[in-house]
Amino acid sequence: MAAAAPPPPPTAPAELNMDLPTTHPLFTRIRLATKPDVPAIHKMIHQMAVFERLADQCSATELSLSATLFSKPTPFESFTVFLIEASTKPFPPSSISSSPKFTPIHKTLTLDLPISDPESENFKSSTMEDDVIVAGFVLFFPNYSTFLAKPGFYIEDLFVRESYRRKGLGRMLLSAVAKQAVAMGYGRVEWVVLDWNLNAIRFYEEMGADVMQEWRVCRLAGEALQSYAATSGTSDDLDCI
Amino acid sequence: MAAAAPPPPPTAPAELNMDLPTTHPLFTRIRLATKPDVPAIHKMIHQMAVFERLADQCSATELSLSATLFSKPTPFESFTVFLIEASTKPFPPSSISSSPKFTPIHKTLTLDLPISDPESENFKSSTMEDDVIVAGFVLFFPNYSTFLAKPGFYIEDLFVRESYRRKGLGRMLLSAVAKQAVAMGYGRVEWVVLDWNLNAIRFYEEMGADVMQEWRVCRLAGEALQSYAATSGTSDDLDCI
Repeated sequence: MAAAAPPPPPTAPAELNMDLPTTHPLFTRIRLATKPDVPAIHKMIHQMAVFERLADQCSATELSLSATLFSKPTPFESFTVFLIEASTKPFPPSSISSSPKFTPIHKTLTLDLPISDPESENFKSSTMEDDVIVAGFVLFFPNYSTFLAKPGFYIEDLFVRESYRRKGLGRMLLSAVAKQAVAMGYGRVEWVVLDWNLNAIRFYEEMGADVMQEWRVCRLAGEALQSYAATSGTSDDLDCI
Repeated sequence: MAAAAPPPPPTAPAELNMDLPTTHPLFTRIRLATKPDVPAIHKMIHQMAVFERLADQCSATELSLSATLFSKPTPFESFTVFLIEASTKPFPPSSISSSPKFTPIHKTLTLDLPISDPESENFKSSTMEDDVIVAGFVLFFPNYSTFLAKPGFYIEDLFVRESYRRKGLGRMLLSAVAKQAVAMGYGRVEWVVLDWNLNAIRFYEEMGADVMQEWRVCRLAGEALQSYAATSGTSDDLDCI
Protein backbone atom coordinates (compact mmCIF):
# COMPACT_ATOMS: atom_id res chain seq x y z
CA MET A 1 0.00 0.00 0.00
CA ALA A 2 1.48 3.32 -1.07
CA ALA A 3 1.55 6.17 1.44
CA ALA A 4 0.03 9.46 0.27
CA ALA A 5 3.25 11.29 1.06
CA PRO A 6 6.48 9.32 1.36
CA PRO A 7 8.19 9.61 4.74
CA PRO A 8 11.54 11.42 4.82
CA PRO A 9 14.46 9.12 4.05
CA PRO A 10 15.88 7.58 7.22
CA THR A 11 19.46 8.56 6.40
CA ALA A 12 20.96 11.80 5.23
CA PRO A 13 21.17 12.28 1.45
CA ALA A 14 24.11 10.52 -0.16
CA GLU A 15 25.91 13.71 -1.18
CA LEU A 16 26.17 14.80 2.47
CA ASN A 17 27.50 11.50 3.82
CA MET A 18 31.07 12.75 3.70
CA ASP A 19 30.32 15.86 5.75
CA LEU A 20 27.60 14.96 8.28
CA PRO A 21 27.33 11.84 10.43
CA THR A 22 24.56 9.52 9.30
CA THR A 23 21.73 9.38 11.84
CA HIS A 24 19.15 6.68 12.45
CA PRO A 25 15.73 7.49 13.83
CA LEU A 26 14.22 5.03 16.31
CA PHE A 27 10.50 5.44 16.80
CA THR A 28 9.29 4.35 20.23
CA ARG A 29 5.90 3.86 21.80
CA ILE A 30 4.88 3.12 25.39
CA ARG A 31 1.54 1.34 25.68
CA LEU A 32 -0.40 -0.77 28.16
CA ALA A 33 0.30 -4.50 27.88
CA THR A 34 -2.56 -7.01 27.61
CA LYS A 35 -2.78 -10.81 27.66
CA PRO A 36 -1.42 -11.30 24.09
CA ASP A 37 1.83 -9.66 25.30
CA VAL A 38 2.48 -12.38 27.91
CA PRO A 39 4.88 -14.44 25.71
CA ALA A 40 7.17 -11.41 25.21
CA ILE A 41 6.92 -10.44 28.89
CA HIS A 42 7.72 -14.02 29.90
CA LYS A 43 10.88 -14.06 27.76
CA MET A 44 11.99 -10.71 29.22
CA ILE A 45 11.40 -11.88 32.81
CA HIS A 46 13.68 -14.84 32.13
CA GLN A 47 16.32 -12.62 30.52
CA MET A 48 16.15 -10.37 33.58
CA ALA A 49 16.60 -13.37 35.88
CA VAL A 50 19.66 -14.47 33.91
CA PHE A 51 21.07 -10.91 34.02
CA GLU A 52 20.58 -10.84 37.81
CA ARG A 53 22.06 -14.37 38.13
CA LEU A 54 18.81 -15.45 39.75
CA ALA A 55 17.53 -17.75 37.01
CA ASP A 56 17.15 -20.59 39.52
CA GLN A 57 14.62 -18.48 41.46
CA CYS A 58 12.47 -17.72 38.43
CA SER A 59 9.58 -20.14 38.05
CA ALA A 60 7.29 -17.92 35.96
CA THR A 61 5.71 -19.56 32.91
CA GLU A 62 3.48 -18.10 30.20
CA LEU A 63 0.60 -19.97 31.79
CA SER A 64 1.20 -18.72 35.33
CA LEU A 65 1.69 -15.14 34.12
CA SER A 66 -1.50 -15.31 32.05
CA ALA A 67 -3.41 -16.61 35.04
CA THR A 68 -2.34 -13.73 37.28
CA LEU A 69 -1.95 -10.68 35.00
CA PHE A 70 -4.35 -8.53 32.99
CA SER A 71 -7.55 -10.17 34.16
CA LYS A 72 -9.04 -6.85 35.34
CA PRO A 73 -10.46 -4.50 32.74
CA THR A 74 -9.11 -1.41 34.52
CA PRO A 75 -5.38 -0.72 34.38
CA PHE A 76 -3.52 0.95 37.27
CA GLU A 77 -5.85 -0.45 39.96
CA SER A 78 -3.91 -3.71 40.03
CA PHE A 79 -0.75 -5.16 38.45
CA THR A 80 0.00 -3.10 35.35
CA VAL A 81 2.63 -3.41 32.62
CA PHE A 82 3.82 -0.71 30.25
CA LEU A 83 5.63 -2.07 27.20
CA ILE A 84 8.07 0.04 25.24
CA GLU A 85 8.14 -0.90 21.57
CA ALA A 86 10.50 0.30 18.88
CA SER A 87 10.38 0.56 15.12
CA THR A 88 12.60 1.98 12.40
CA LYS A 89 9.41 3.35 10.78
CA PRO A 90 6.91 5.81 12.27
CA PHE A 91 3.97 4.23 14.10
CA PRO A 92 0.63 4.80 12.40
CA PRO A 93 -1.16 7.07 14.89
CA SER A 94 -4.25 4.91 15.33
CA SER A 95 -2.67 1.50 14.97
CA ILE A 96 -3.75 0.21 18.39
CA SER A 97 -6.93 0.72 20.35
CA SER A 98 -5.98 3.06 23.14
CA SER A 99 -7.51 2.49 26.56
CA PRO A 100 -9.62 5.37 27.86
CA LYS A 101 -7.27 5.27 30.86
CA PHE A 102 -3.98 5.69 28.99
CA THR A 103 -2.90 7.27 25.74
CA PRO A 104 0.27 5.70 24.30
CA ILE A 105 3.38 7.86 24.52
CA HIS A 106 5.38 8.30 21.31
CA LYS A 107 8.94 9.55 21.08
CA THR A 108 11.48 9.53 18.27
CA LEU A 109 15.12 9.03 19.16
CA THR A 110 18.04 9.85 16.90
CA LEU A 111 20.78 7.25 17.07
CA ASP A 112 24.29 7.38 15.65
CA LEU A 113 24.17 3.69 14.79
CA PRO A 114 21.22 1.52 13.77
CA ILE A 115 19.93 -0.99 16.32
CA SER A 116 21.27 -4.49 15.81
CA ASP A 117 18.72 -6.85 17.35
CA PRO A 118 19.47 -10.54 16.75
CA GLU A 119 16.32 -11.53 18.67
CA SER A 120 13.83 -9.32 16.88
CA GLU A 121 11.94 -12.32 15.47
CA ASN A 122 11.18 -13.46 19.03
CA PHE A 123 9.93 -10.07 20.14
CA LYS A 124 7.50 -8.99 17.42
CA SER A 125 4.71 -6.88 18.85
CA SER A 126 1.44 -8.67 19.57
CA THR A 127 -0.27 -5.80 17.71
CA MET A 128 0.88 -7.46 14.45
CA GLU A 129 2.14 -4.12 13.17
CA ASP A 130 4.95 -4.50 10.69
CA ASP A 131 8.48 -3.89 12.06
CA VAL A 132 7.36 -3.19 15.66
CA ILE A 133 9.55 -4.90 18.26
CA VAL A 134 9.09 -5.14 22.03
CA ALA A 135 12.15 -3.50 23.61
CA GLY A 136 11.36 -3.45 27.34
CA PHE A 137 8.76 -3.31 30.08
CA VAL A 138 7.93 -1.98 33.51
CA LEU A 139 5.59 -3.82 35.90
CA PHE A 140 4.02 -1.72 38.66
CA PHE A 141 0.98 -1.67 40.93
CA PRO A 142 -0.65 0.59 43.52
CA ASN A 143 0.68 0.81 47.04
CA TYR A 144 -0.64 2.99 49.88
CA SER A 145 0.80 5.42 52.40
CA THR A 146 -1.25 5.78 55.56
CA PHE A 147 0.70 8.91 56.52
CA LEU A 148 -0.23 10.59 53.21
CA ALA A 149 -3.63 8.83 53.01
CA LYS A 150 -2.82 8.45 49.32
CA PRO A 151 -2.02 5.63 46.95
CA GLY A 152 1.27 5.53 45.08
CA PHE A 153 2.90 3.15 42.63
CA TYR A 154 5.41 0.44 43.44
CA ILE A 155 7.66 -0.62 40.56
CA GLU A 156 8.42 -4.32 40.77
CA ASP A 157 10.48 -4.66 37.58
CA LEU A 158 12.05 -2.44 34.96
CA PHE A 159 13.80 -4.13 32.06
CA VAL A 160 15.14 -3.10 28.67
CA ARG A 161 16.38 -5.73 26.21
CA GLU A 162 20.13 -5.72 25.63
CA SER A 163 20.06 -4.34 22.09
CA TYR A 164 18.11 -1.29 23.25
CA ARG A 165 20.04 -0.37 26.40
CA ARG A 166 21.75 2.97 27.17
CA LYS A 167 19.44 4.90 24.87
CA GLY A 168 17.07 6.33 27.47
CA LEU A 169 14.28 3.72 27.14
CA GLY A 170 14.45 2.72 30.83
CA ARG A 171 14.18 6.32 31.88
CA MET A 172 11.23 6.78 29.50
CA LEU A 173 9.45 3.85 31.18
CA LEU A 174 10.18 5.23 34.67
CA SER A 175 9.03 8.64 33.56
CA ALA A 176 5.78 7.19 32.17
CA VAL A 177 5.04 5.64 35.59
CA ALA A 178 5.86 8.92 37.36
CA LYS A 179 3.64 10.89 34.95
CA GLN A 180 0.80 8.42 35.50
CA ALA A 181 1.20 8.75 39.29
CA VAL A 182 1.04 12.54 39.06
CA ALA A 183 -1.95 12.39 36.69
CA MET A 184 -3.81 10.24 39.22
CA GLY A 185 -2.91 12.50 42.16
CA TYR A 186 -0.76 9.79 43.74
CA GLY A 187 1.87 10.63 46.34
CA ARG A 188 4.87 8.43 45.64
CA VAL A 189 6.67 6.08 43.30
CA GLU A 190 8.82 3.47 45.04
CA TRP A 191 11.09 0.56 44.09
CA VAL A 192 14.11 -1.26 45.51
CA VAL A 193 17.76 -1.34 44.50
CA LEU A 194 20.70 -3.54 45.57
CA ASP A 195 23.01 -1.64 47.94
CA TRP A 196 26.15 -2.59 45.96
CA ASN A 197 24.70 -1.26 42.71
CA LEU A 198 26.29 2.17 43.10
CA ASN A 199 25.69 3.19 39.48
CA ALA A 200 21.99 2.57 39.88
CA ILE A 201 21.89 4.38 43.23
CA ARG A 202 23.62 7.43 41.71
CA PHE A 203 21.23 7.33 38.75
CA TYR A 204 18.18 7.24 41.04
CA GLU A 205 19.53 9.99 43.30
CA GLU A 206 20.14 12.19 40.26
CA MET A 207 16.47 11.62 39.36
CA GLY A 208 15.56 13.12 42.73
CA ALA A 209 14.73 9.83 44.43
CA ASP A 210 15.54 9.27 48.09
CA VAL A 211 17.46 6.00 48.63
CA MET A 212 16.45 5.07 52.17
CA GLN A 213 19.34 3.54 54.08
CA GLU A 214 17.56 2.50 57.30
CA TRP A 215 14.76 0.28 56.05
CA ARG A 216 15.10 -3.46 55.40
CA VAL A 217 12.61 -5.56 53.47
CA CYS A 218 11.26 -8.56 55.39
CA ARG A 219 9.89 -11.49 53.40
CA LEU A 220 7.88 -14.44 54.64
CA ALA A 221 7.59 -16.97 51.81
CA GLY A 222 7.50 -20.62 50.89
CA GLU A 223 7.45 -23.12 53.74
CA ALA A 224 8.01 -20.42 56.37
CA LEU A 225 4.82 -18.69 55.20
CA GLN A 226 2.87 -21.94 55.19
CA SER A 227 3.98 -22.89 58.67
CA TYR A 228 3.48 -19.41 60.13
CA ALA A 229 -0.02 -19.28 58.66
CA ALA A 230 -0.75 -22.62 60.35
CA THR A 231 0.30 -21.41 63.82
CA SER A 232 -2.23 -19.94 66.20
CA GLY A 233 -0.19 -16.83 66.98
CA THR A 234 -0.87 -16.19 70.65
CA SER A 235 2.62 -15.94 72.12
CA ASP A 236 4.13 -12.67 73.27
CA ASP A 237 4.61 -9.76 70.95
CA LEU A 238 7.07 -6.97 70.56
CA ASP A 239 6.80 -3.94 72.85
CA CYS A 240 5.30 -1.91 70.02
CA ILE A 241 2.54 -4.33 69.06
CA MET B 1 -32.02 -10.91 77.85
CA ALA B 2 -31.18 -14.10 79.71
CA ALA B 3 -28.91 -16.61 78.03
CA ALA B 4 -30.22 -20.18 77.79
CA ALA B 5 -27.15 -21.45 79.61
CA PRO B 6 -25.11 -19.01 81.67
CA PRO B 7 -21.46 -18.68 80.57
CA PRO B 8 -18.84 -19.93 83.04
CA PRO B 9 -17.87 -17.28 85.59
CA PRO B 10 -14.97 -15.18 84.33
CA THR B 11 -12.96 -15.57 87.52
CA ALA B 12 -12.17 -18.60 89.63
CA PRO B 13 -14.70 -19.40 92.38
CA ALA B 14 -14.27 -17.29 95.50
CA GLU B 15 -13.20 -20.20 97.67
CA LEU B 16 -10.19 -20.82 95.42
CA ASN B 17 -9.00 -17.20 95.26
CA MET B 18 -6.39 -17.83 97.90
CA ASP B 19 -4.83 -20.73 96.00
CA LEU B 20 -5.14 -19.88 92.28
CA PRO B 21 -4.34 -16.57 90.56
CA THR B 22 -7.39 -14.72 89.29
CA THR B 23 -7.54 -14.73 85.50
CA HIS B 24 -9.23 -12.34 83.13
CA PRO B 25 -10.52 -13.47 79.75
CA LEU B 26 -10.11 -11.10 76.82
CA PHE B 27 -12.28 -11.94 73.85
CA THR B 28 -10.81 -10.82 70.53
CA ARG B 29 -12.08 -10.69 66.99
CA ILE B 30 -10.34 -9.89 63.71
CA ARG B 31 -12.66 -8.55 61.03
CA LEU B 32 -12.50 -6.55 57.80
CA ALA B 33 -12.70 -2.80 58.30
CA THR B 34 -15.17 -0.69 56.32
CA LYS B 35 -15.79 3.05 55.92
CA PRO B 36 -17.45 3.50 59.34
CA ASP B 37 -14.15 2.37 60.91
CA VAL B 38 -12.18 5.28 59.41
CA PRO B 39 -12.34 7.51 62.55
CA ALA B 40 -10.74 4.78 64.69
CA ILE B 41 -8.17 3.98 61.99
CA HIS B 42 -7.35 7.68 61.66
CA LYS B 43 -6.70 8.00 65.41
CA MET B 44 -4.47 4.92 65.37
CA ILE B 45 -2.46 6.19 62.38
CA HIS B 46 -1.75 9.38 64.32
CA GLN B 47 -0.80 7.42 67.45
CA MET B 48 1.55 5.34 65.30
CA ALA B 49 3.13 8.49 63.84
CA VAL B 50 3.69 9.86 67.36
CA PHE B 51 5.19 6.52 68.48
CA GLU B 52 7.57 6.60 65.48
CA ARG B 53 8.37 10.30 66.12
CA LEU B 54 7.15 11.05 62.62
CA ALA B 55 4.00 13.01 63.50
CA ASP B 56 5.17 15.91 61.32
CA GLN B 57 5.08 13.61 58.28
CA CYS B 58 1.55 12.42 58.89
CA SER B 59 -1.03 14.42 56.98
CA ALA B 60 -3.83 11.82 56.91
CA THR B 61 -7.30 13.07 57.83
CA GLU B 62 -10.58 11.19 58.22
CA LEU B 63 -11.67 12.77 54.95
CA SER B 64 -8.56 11.80 52.98
CA LEU B 65 -8.64 8.26 54.35
CA SER B 66 -12.34 7.91 53.52
CA ALA B 67 -11.68 9.12 50.00
CA THR B 68 -8.97 6.51 49.36
CA LEU B 69 -9.94 3.43 51.39
CA PHE B 70 -12.76 0.89 51.19
CA SER B 71 -14.34 2.16 48.00
CA LYS B 72 -14.09 -1.25 46.31
CA PRO B 73 -16.65 -3.91 47.24
CA THR B 74 -14.05 -6.71 47.12
CA PRO B 75 -11.48 -6.90 49.91
CA PHE B 76 -7.93 -8.17 49.31
CA GLU B 77 -7.79 -6.94 45.69
CA SER B 78 -6.82 -3.46 46.84
CA PHE B 79 -5.95 -1.69 50.13
CA THR B 80 -7.38 -3.81 52.94
CA VAL B 81 -7.57 -3.31 56.72
CA PHE B 82 -8.08 -5.97 59.35
CA LEU B 83 -9.18 -4.56 62.71
CA ILE B 84 -8.63 -6.44 65.92
CA GLU B 85 -11.32 -5.71 68.49
CA ALA B 86 -11.46 -6.74 72.12
CA SER B 87 -14.18 -7.23 74.68
CA THR B 88 -14.41 -8.49 78.24
CA LYS B 89 -17.57 -10.35 77.17
CA PRO B 90 -17.95 -13.02 74.50
CA PHE B 91 -18.86 -11.73 71.03
CA PRO B 92 -22.31 -12.80 69.88
CA PRO B 93 -21.49 -15.14 66.97
CA SER B 94 -23.59 -13.37 64.34
CA SER B 95 -23.19 -9.81 65.54
CA ILE B 96 -21.65 -8.50 62.32
CA SER B 97 -22.39 -9.31 58.72
CA SER B 98 -19.44 -11.35 57.55
CA SER B 99 -18.12 -10.78 54.04
CA PRO B 100 -18.28 -13.85 51.79
CA LYS B 101 -14.53 -13.27 51.35
CA PHE B 102 -13.55 -13.37 55.03
CA THR B 103 -14.90 -14.99 58.15
CA PRO B 104 -13.96 -13.09 61.33
CA ILE B 105 -11.37 -14.83 63.49
CA HIS B 106 -12.23 -15.19 67.18
CA LYS B 107 -9.78 -15.99 69.95
CA THR B 108 -10.02 -15.79 73.73
CA LEU B 109 -6.93 -14.79 75.67
CA THR B 110 -6.42 -15.37 79.37
CA LEU B 111 -4.75 -12.43 81.07
CA ASP B 112 -3.32 -12.19 84.57
CA LEU B 113 -4.50 -8.61 84.89
CA PRO B 114 -7.53 -6.89 83.40
CA ILE B 115 -6.95 -4.40 80.57
CA SER B 116 -6.85 -0.80 81.69
CA ASP B 117 -7.81 1.30 78.68
CA PRO B 118 -8.18 5.02 79.43
CA GLU B 119 -9.12 5.69 75.79
CA SER B 120 -11.84 3.10 75.39
CA GLU B 121 -14.52 5.76 74.87
CA ASN B 122 -12.65 6.98 71.77
CA PHE B 123 -12.28 3.52 70.29
CA LYS B 124 -15.76 2.00 70.51
CA SER B 125 -16.39 -0.36 67.62
CA SER B 126 -18.36 1.02 64.70
CA THR B 127 -20.49 -2.13 64.93
CA MET B 128 -22.22 -0.53 67.95
CA GLU B 129 -21.86 -3.74 69.93
CA ASP B 130 -21.73 -3.14 73.65
CA ASP B 131 -18.25 -3.22 75.22
CA VAL B 132 -16.36 -3.86 71.96
CA ILE B 133 -13.22 -1.75 71.61
CA VAL B 134 -10.89 -1.36 68.62
CA ALA B 135 -7.43 -2.52 69.78
CA GLY B 136 -5.32 -2.45 66.61
CA PHE B 137 -5.14 -2.78 62.85
CA VAL B 138 -3.08 -4.01 59.94
CA LEU B 139 -3.22 -2.37 56.51
CA PHE B 140 -2.07 -4.49 53.56
CA PHE B 141 -2.53 -4.80 49.81
CA PRO B 142 -1.52 -7.11 46.97
CA ASN B 143 1.93 -6.97 45.46
CA TYR B 144 3.33 -9.14 42.67
CA SER B 145 6.42 -11.24 42.07
CA THR B 146 7.32 -11.69 38.41
CA PHE B 147 9.75 -14.49 39.31
CA LEU B 148 6.97 -16.44 41.04
CA ALA B 149 4.26 -15.13 38.66
CA LYS B 150 2.13 -14.85 41.78
CA PRO B 151 0.63 -12.09 43.88
CA GLY B 152 1.54 -11.67 47.51
CA PHE B 153 0.62 -9.24 50.25
CA TYR B 154 2.57 -6.18 51.34
CA ILE B 155 1.94 -5.01 54.90
CA GLU B 156 2.15 -1.23 55.09
CA ASP B 157 1.23 -0.81 58.76
CA LEU B 158 0.73 -2.95 61.83
CA PHE B 159 -0.35 -1.21 65.02
CA VAL B 160 -1.71 -2.25 68.40
CA ARG B 161 -2.95 0.39 70.86
CA GLU B 162 -0.77 0.81 73.94
CA SER B 163 -3.16 -0.76 76.45
CA TYR B 164 -3.29 -3.96 74.40
CA ARG B 165 0.40 -4.45 73.62
CA ARG B 166 2.55 -7.50 74.47
CA LYS B 167 -0.42 -9.83 74.53
CA GLY B 168 -0.01 -11.40 71.10
CA LEU B 169 -2.51 -9.20 69.21
CA GLY B 170 0.10 -7.97 66.72
CA ARG B 171 1.13 -11.52 65.97
CA MET B 172 -2.55 -12.48 65.56
CA LEU B 173 -2.95 -9.71 62.96
CA LEU B 174 0.23 -10.80 61.11
CA SER B 175 -0.93 -14.38 61.25
CA ALA B 176 -4.34 -13.44 59.83
CA VAL B 177 -2.62 -11.81 56.82
CA ALA B 178 -0.36 -14.86 56.36
CA LYS B 179 -3.38 -17.21 56.56
CA GLN B 180 -5.24 -15.11 54.02
CA ALA B 181 -2.22 -15.17 51.68
CA VAL B 182 -2.01 -18.96 51.93
CA ALA B 183 -5.78 -19.33 51.46
CA MET B 184 -5.54 -17.30 48.23
CA GLY B 185 -2.54 -19.26 46.95
CA TYR B 186 -0.26 -16.22 47.23
CA GLY B 187 3.50 -16.59 47.33
CA ARG B 188 4.81 -14.05 49.84
CA VAL B 189 4.06 -11.63 52.64
CA GLU B 190 6.46 -8.67 52.81
CA TRP B 191 6.97 -5.54 54.93
CA VAL B 192 9.84 -3.29 55.99
CA VAL B 193 11.63 -2.79 59.31
CA LEU B 194 14.12 -0.18 60.53
CA ASP B 195 17.65 -1.63 60.62
CA TRP B 196 18.30 -0.39 64.19
CA ASN B 197 15.14 -2.08 65.50
CA LEU B 198 16.96 -5.25 66.54
CA ASN B 199 14.10 -6.54 68.71
CA ALA B 200 11.75 -6.38 65.75
CA ILE B 201 14.30 -8.01 63.44
CA ARG B 202 14.80 -10.88 65.89
CA PHE B 203 11.02 -11.25 66.27
CA TYR B 204 10.55 -11.42 62.48
CA GLU B 205 13.43 -13.85 62.01
CA GLU B 206 11.97 -16.12 64.68
CA MET B 207 8.72 -16.07 62.68
CA GLY B 208 10.69 -17.50 59.76
CA ALA B 209 10.92 -14.25 57.79
CA ASP B 210 14.02 -13.39 55.78
CA VAL B 211 15.31 -9.88 56.61
CA MET B 212 17.00 -8.89 53.36
CA GLN B 213 20.16 -6.89 53.98
CA GLU B 214 21.11 -5.91 50.43
CA TRP B 215 18.00 -4.14 49.18
CA ARG B 216 17.30 -0.44 49.67
CA VAL B 217 13.93 1.21 49.14
CA CYS B 218 13.97 4.11 46.66
CA ARG B 219 11.25 6.73 46.91
CA LEU B 220 10.36 9.47 44.46
CA ALA B 221 7.83 11.78 46.09
CA GLY B 222 6.65 15.34 46.48
CA GLU B 223 8.33 17.96 44.31
CA ALA B 224 10.93 15.50 43.02
CA LEU B 225 8.11 13.31 41.66
CA GLN B 226 6.35 16.29 40.09
CA SER B 227 9.47 17.55 38.40
CA TYR B 228 10.63 14.12 37.22
CA ALA B 229 7.18 13.46 35.74
CA ALA B 230 7.46 16.76 33.85
CA THR B 231 10.82 15.88 32.24
CA SER B 232 10.97 14.22 28.86
CA GLY B 233 13.35 11.47 29.93
CA THR B 234 15.56 10.92 26.91
CA SER B 235 19.05 11.18 28.35
CA ASP B 236 21.33 8.19 28.82
CA ASP B 237 20.38 5.27 30.98
CA LEU B 238 22.16 2.80 33.16
CA ASP B 239 23.97 -0.12 31.54
CA CYS B 240 21.18 -2.47 32.56
CA ILE B 241 18.29 -0.46 31.12
